[in-house]
Amino acid sequence: MDKPLIIGVAGGSASGKTSVSKILVETFSQQTITLLRQDDYYNDQSHMTMEERVKTNYDHPLSMDNALLVQHLKDLIKGEDIQKPLYDYANHTRSSKTETIRPTKIIIVEGLFVLEDADIRELLDIKVFVKSDDDIRFIRRLLRDTEERGRSLDSVVTQYMESVKPMHEQFIEPSKKHADIIVPEGKTNTVALDLLMTKINSTLNAG
Amino acid sequence: MDKPLIIGVAGGSASGKTSVSKILVETFSQQTITLLRQDDYYNDQSHMTMEERVKTNYDHPLSMDNALLVQHLKDLIKGEDIQKPLYDYANHTRSSKTETIRPTKIIIVEGLFVLEDADIRELLDIKVFVKSDDDIRFIRRLLRDTEERGRSLDSVVTQYMESVKPMHEQFIEPSKKHADIIVPEGKTNTVALDLLMTKINSTLNAG
Repeated sequence: MDKPLIIGVAGGSASGKTSVSKILVETFSQQTITLLRQDDYYNDQSHMTMEERVKTNYDHPLSMDNALLVQHLKDLIKGEDIQKPLYDYANHTRSSKTETIRPTKIIIVEGLFVLEDADIRELLDIKVFVKSDDDIRFIRRLLRDTEERGRSLDSVVTQYMESVKPMHEQFIEPSKKHADIIVPEGKTNTVALDLLMTKINSTLNAG
Repeated sequence: MDKPLIIGVAGGSASGKTSVSKILVETFSQQTITLLRQDDYYNDQSHMTMEERVKTNYDHPLSMDNALLVQHLKDLIKGEDIQKPLYDYANHTRSSKTETIRPTKIIIVEGLFVLEDADIRELLDIKVFVKSDDDIRFIRRLLRDTEERGRSLDSVVTQYMESVKPMHEQFIEPSKKHADIIVPEGKTNTVALDLLMTKINSTLNAG
């Protein structure tokens, strides 16, 4: 098998990166495209007490097991199956279950820090940074967290000010520098989506 | 003939937009792709004295005859030839000569203000903004204008501070908001160039 085409999709919280990745993955068949979400690669914290686990800063890149993500990408490139971790959000640690992922010709790697980590970057053929205005990103997060997750306005603002925004400025925004293309807004940007889909189609047809 | 694919390439002075456009145009045959440069559409100033002409702010969008550029795009879309103007830089006005441009399946429209003008934007299928750091853009301009055009350091800095930079901040940088994709650096960004070339190829093959 040829080396798969690996597309990294990074961006801030609520930038639209997840929507972009999902649209790409759902446009093609499961046999040809795989989505790896960095969110599934939060560190295993089973050796920590619950008290310690809740103190983890999940907006910091060190909360991610990027070494495992890199290993999995390399395995997929070699044509081998991987056992993708699943995260148990209720218990703030990795689930004991995994999901078998088979190698495909196209791989999307999506997450806050996929352009921040040099080892991940080195494996990416196309580095995409999805960019939405900071105020729009906050408003989306606020609506999602209050409406869908029942959180208070105060708690959303506090987390945003103390963790989401400083980590964004320290790690995510600077990682935009590594992007091959910056995609303003996410899922509504049909022109940028079409460019990526055309490239994926062309790769599939060439293979 | 199907409506041509029209790609707009904007960006600040020395951002790399001209190089990106040239690479795209030179990759395909003259029969399939045409480059329209906004620089060829500076206003006709033949009714003005030389003293008046040199006072024109060429970094301001009003120095451009966008109405003619829009008309030419519409003519090409209809499948008609255009008489593209040529600019006489020595005399600061439009030359009496023109160049016949035939309609092609792909048209690149390149210039400082091609995303700034709403009438041009409406005709673009893909809106590209080439983005380089402001200091890098200044350094490129400085080297080009001192080495190739024999200008003094003082004159380059004065023009940059009095005209290039304020016009960039007022008109060009805000037009980035209209881009479908932002391309960091220009000609060295082979991944972004490949995405555009793949789209052009796909359009040519479909037609």
